[in-house]
Amino acid sequence: MGVTVSKGDLTRERIVAQAAPIFNQRGFAGCSMADVMEVTGLEKGGLYRHFSSKQALAEEAFKYSLAQSVKTRTADLGHIEGAVEKLRYVVRRFVETPSAVAGGCPLMNTAIDADDANPELRALAKKGFARWKTRLGGIVEAGIEAGEIRAEVEPRRVANVMIAALEGALTISRLDGDKEALRDAAWMLERMLEGIKVVKEKRPARAAVTS
Amino acid sequence: MGVTVSKGDLTRERIVAQAAPIFNQRGFAGCSMADVMEVTGLEKGGLYRHFSSKQALAEEAFKYSLAQSVKTRTADLGHIEGAVEKLRYVVRRFVETPSAVAGGCPLMNTAIDADDANPELRALAKKGFARWKTRLGGIVEAGIEAGEIRAEVEPRRVANVMIAALEGALTISRLDGDKEALRDAAWMLERMLEGIKVVKEKRPARAAVTS
Repeated sequence: MGVTVSKGDLTRERIVAQAAPIFNQRGFAGCSMADVMEVTGLEKGGLYRHFSSKQALAEEAFKYSLAQSVKTRTADLGHIEGAVEKLRYVVRRFVETPSAVAGGCPLMNTAIDADDANPELRALAKKGFARWKTRLGGIVEAGIEAGEIRAEVEPRRVANVMIAALEGALTISRLDGDKEALRDAAWMLERMLEGIKVVKEKRPARAAVTS
Repeated sequence: MGVTVSKGDLTRERIVAQAAPIFNQRGFAGCSMADVMEVTGLEKGGLYRHFSSKQALAEEAFKYSLAQSVKTRTADLGHIEGAVEKLRYVVRRFVETPSAVAGGCPLMNTAIDADDANPELRALAKKGFARWKTRLGGIVEAGIEAGEIRAEVEPRRVANVMIAALEGALTISRLDGDKEALRDAAWMLERMLEGIKVVKEKRPARAAVTS
């Protein structure tokens, strides 16, 4: 069964994809509909046929940027065995892969841009962080259930520390123009992840004492 | 000897103090000179007599917000004994004290707001982060010299991890409207700081084995 995509849908998708990096780099107030007209080559009438307001377009642009970002950061995560290895992979991907949409992390950008000024975008950023926290926390939980991660580890705490350190470090690294802060954060997170593992001894402790 | 402060200087200082929270909350593009006129009660002519452009005012406002923030976060730091205790105090102050200027951390806000859009503000934010890193790194270095912190600890890494985790967590906490992310980051940093200390044993290890 074929899926029919209208020309209008394609134009709408193209507008969102072209507007996303401008909103991600300049923020809501820093991006005008005139900027979007320029980058898409559309007239005012053409643009407003698809989006009733800058707010409506900015929300779609954020969702698009976030979806691209999640795809880039978690590509192939399903193929990785083990909870701790999965979390390590998330850290490495975050450090190594450039932003999926120009301008850095859309979650962080929108959180800072919208926290005091735009309740709708703020709510979308909050939801984005909450989902990421749930996803990372879920990996920790699965690791506890599998006996790989120590039972007393708090999944939420591991998730919060990972997200905070990576996002904070990305902001510093983008300013500094190098990956030093990101690599330092990754180093600390690697140690944290090593520390939550169940230590499997090769021989029982008693045997080691008596041998 | 008295210091003479002119009426013009006082007006200038008042404009900066009143504009600072607007720039900190809304960002450069989101704050207009009309907004500043409204909050200060000044006419256009009065405002431009003190600041030739929005850019000039935004730079002063950022410097003011950062100075307030540094003052709040490091108040009494000089009275604290010991490098690790000093670093712990920085973590606690960051978690416990509200933003000195409404809108969250001016460093983080300006870093995100200006990184792709405003080279002058970007440079000021970069300098602010670099100074903070140097200050925290200096505390670690002093701790190493005093034999309190292990010699192989990298001061820059400790500073980067502290700043990244605290700033990232603050952004999440501001969105969530609670301190959970900040407390989780502080928990991890406490463990990191505990881990960099030179462990002083009360008795030599040999004695413990033979007693």
